[in-house]
Amino acid sequence: MDTSAADAAHMARAVELAARGHGSTSPNPVVGCVVLSPSGQVVGEGFHPYAGGPHAEVVALAQAGERARGGTAYVTLEPCDHTGRTGPCSQALLAAGVARVVVAVADPNPKAAGGATRLRAAGVSVTRGVLAEAAERVNEEWLTFARLGRSHVTWKFAATLDGRSAAADGTSQWITSPQARADVHRLRAASDAIVAGIGTVLADDPHLTARLPEPAPPAESGAESGAESGDGGALLAGSPPLAARPLGARPPLRVVVDTEGRTPPAARVLDDEAPTLVAVADDAATGLKAGLLRLPRHDGGLDLAALLRELAAREVVSVFLEGGPTLAGAFLRQGLIDRVVAYLAPALLGEGRAALGPAGVRTITGIHHLTFDEFSPIGPDLRLIARPAPHQGREK
Amino acid sequence: MDTSAADAAHMARAVELAARGHGSTSPNPVVGCVVLSPSGQVVGEGFHPYAGGPHAEVVALAQAGERARGGTAYVTLEPCDHTGRTGPCSQALLAAGVARVVVAVADPNPKAAGGATRLRAAGVSVTRGVLAEAAERVNEEWLTFARLGRSHVTWKFAATLDGRSAAADGTSQWITSPQARADVHRLRAASDAIVAGIGTVLADDPHLTARLPEPAPPAESGAESGAESGDGGALLAGSPPLAARPLGARPPLRVVVDTEGRTPPAARVLDDEAPTLVAVADDAATGLKAGLLRLPRHDGGLDLAALLRELAAREVVSVFLEGGPTLAGAFLRQGLIDRVVAYLAPALLGEGRAALGPAGVRTITGIHHLTFDEFSPIGPDLRLIARPAPHQGREK
Ligand SMILES: NC(=O)c1ccc[n+]([C@@H]2O[C@H](COP(=O)([O-])OP(=O)(O)OC[C@H]3O[C@@H](n4cnc5c(N)ncnc54)[C@H](OP(=O)(O)O)[C@@H]3O)[C@@H](O)[C@H]2O)c1
Ligand SMILES: NC(=O)c1ccc[n+]([C@@H]2O[C@H](COP(=O)([O-])OP(=O)(O)OC[C@H]3O[C@@H](n4cnc5c(N)ncnc54)[C@H](OP(=O)(O)O)[C@@H]3O)[C@@H](O)[C@H]2O)c1
Repeated sequence: MDTSAADAAHMARAVELAARGHGSTSPNPVVGCVVLSPSGQVVGEGFHPYAGGPHAEVVALAQAGERARGGTAYVTLEPCDHTGRTGPCSQALLAAGVARVVVAVADPNPKAAGGATRLRAAGVSVTRGVLAEAAERVNEEWLTFARLGRSHVTWKFAATLDGRSAAADGTSQWITSPQARADVHRLRAASDAIVAGIGTVLADDPHLTARLPEPAPPAESGAESGAESGDGGALLAGSPPLAARPLGARPPLRVVVDTEGRTPPAARVLDDEAPTLVAVADDAATGLKAGLLRLPRHDGGLDLAALLRELAAREVVSVFLEGGPTLAGAFLRQGLIDRVVAYLAPALLGEGRAALGPAGVRTITGIHHLTFDEFSPIGPDLRLIARPAPHQGREK
Repeated sequence: MDTSAADAAHMARAVELAARGHGSTSPNPVVGCVVLSPSGQVVGEGFHPYAGGPHAEVVALAQAGERARGGTAYVTLEPCDHTGRTGPCSQALLAAGVARVVVAVADPNPKAAGGATRLRAAGVSVTRGVLAEAAERVNEEWLTFARLGRSHVTWKFAATLDGRSAAADGTSQWITSPQARADVHRLRAASDAIVAGIGTVLADDPHLTARLPEPAPPAESGAESGAESGDGGALLAGSPPLAARPLGARPPLRVVVDTEGRTPPAARVLDDEAPTLVAVADDAATGLKAGLLRLPRHDGGLDLAALLRELAAREVVSVFLEGGPTLAGAFLRQGLIDRVVAYLAPALLGEGRAALGPAGVRTITGIHHLTFDEFSPIGPDLRLIARPAPHQGREK
């Protein structure tokens, strides 16, 4: 292998390691690191397991010990240069005597940037941009959060093949399978916040908690296998598996988007199973007291970009948007959806509630283009993961 | 391998061979045959290539010659016992001296049945039901036609991920990709008839002909590869690839479902590129003359089961139903859809024309259940193939 092929292979492994932190590092990024000895042997591997836990570089260097001296370190994200809960990683790499550092993605965080600069100044050779696309993808939630100063939004919907999420009379039980519902709970659990509109709260009185399922029978692939779930299906692009928050971590924040503060005080979403924020308008005359988040009005409802900035300020890196259709349409219209997870049931309705409400498209040229990145069978259903097409005029 | 494993493996090969006849054998079934010598060597393979062409057994036996004597023949469909355009296959198997015949699916055709009986009477050992499911699937169109006395119906639709096939103002250009459109033409070409409603004819003035595409660039898998197209995607079940009618075969019949006979005389569907039937009500006062098919009224439109029986009487084994949504809803309501081919574009609209119109479902328990059998990326789009779930109360 030439150097660049070897670099790509080691970085691919570092990306794989980084993915193991999914769902538990928030508000930190996921990071993976591979350390080679001067002769090119892998002598250390590490990932950042949870916020407050050791950084990937520190884990890998500790494993490598003296064998790292004169060697190479592969890191998915530029090593930090600030002293947070742990010391700066650039310092740890220098202390270990690493001769070369290969970085996939530059750190967009102004507090942490500068690691590469410090390393270079100390005579370490630094290569950047290796496997940047895969490393961006593995960290998409945190990078959106760090670059845009707002939470990353995954919109989930469940519908029939013809895009309906309830029959004409409003009934909707069991459109998708138990396996798909278990998968939704897994994705909820991996998010920092679960967001729903007041329409959904009034109609369904949901808990909006992540109730992690019993392990499913082994025959049902895809739905139950935690970090491996992506393996059940065909990966169109190099998306990492969507992983579960470890049991015992803080439960996701529940957020109701409720312009006038109409959430009933007895709503399940206000019970004490998890913390809850009710986002209301600045001037809403609501009787609700605890957990109010006051936001400007916008576009006939609340300013959703402001909501995501406020959530980011509360260290919410990833939001799982559960609808309903009206709120999802508003997020889409405002360019605030970063990933779509669609569960399609093998069924047809022909009438009934649409999965997506008005999203600001009058004519075909205004269509919201996505790209399909992954599809996986989940029990009898199909899970599709799509993202806004890069050429779209997205908020940046 | 024990006998049953070997039987299954040889029958799987016979099914593969049968599939090569897809799209060109109508009104005959597709059939594949593998012949073994007494020592178990494969000495002959054959399939039925086109109506009027040699039968699979005859091809395989000719290839085997004397080596078939005392050997075994695997046939996907029970050998015919009648003298059609070719002699009875049961006779050919006896003449070749085959000692054992393994059959996947019994012949439902009263004219042809009895092959197994005649073989047994002549002392040949006959095993039935080996790999019956795969052999049913490979022949699903013809078996539906033969068992139910009506054409098999594939409903195709193209829509966004949220089930819309046009924007709010009715515009719908390029929702799916050129690759998906080419794939549609391929499937049209493999059908005996293409059916559309008068709504579609009045709105779009379609040709309803199969214009087979230029070979696409090799990088774009799935859309252009004829009989291999299924290979581009993940096969959930053992569905055969959907194959193309050979160039030069008779073009598919065009059928307009037009209760009152409102098809404009200058409509493209009436040009002379292919034959056309306009199905109208018994009592419709229409100025149209050529190609009228008069049918009873039913359910506010035409009797669609009667339409499919009339088409079957004209040797139309397979119908490709292209909508629109109103007509598709009516076929679904009447239990007359055997296969759904959905092209989903990676895009969202939120409003606009639904892909499927009312299909008789008022409440969730009336939902039309399907099973997903196949999904394939076709360019940027996704093609899903689904079939009515077996437990559904389908017309039988
Ligand atoms: N299939 C699925 O995956 C799924 C998931 C969730 C929910 N659902 C279903 O969806 C239905 C409820 O959906 P829905 O569409 O009626 O309500 P919704 O989307 O849950 O909530 C819409 C409400 O959010 C508030 N809102 C605040 N800011 C907004 C903004 N910027 N833009 C838009 N809305 C804003 C508005 O309340 P104000 O009017 O007070 O301003 C609006 O009426 C339920 O029946 C539920 O079962 C389905
Ligand atoms: N996305 C796609 O894949 C796709 C495919 C095709 C078409 N389209 C679009 O669909 C639109 C047209 O669809 P449409 O729903 O208006 O019309 P349609 O489904 O093409 O035709 C419906 C008409 O069929 C006649 N019909 C006869 N017997 C019937 C029966 N038993 N049940 C129901 N209808 C029966 C009726 O005509 P009478 O009223 O005269 O009785 C009825 O109005 C066009 O805009 C077209 O572009 C989309």
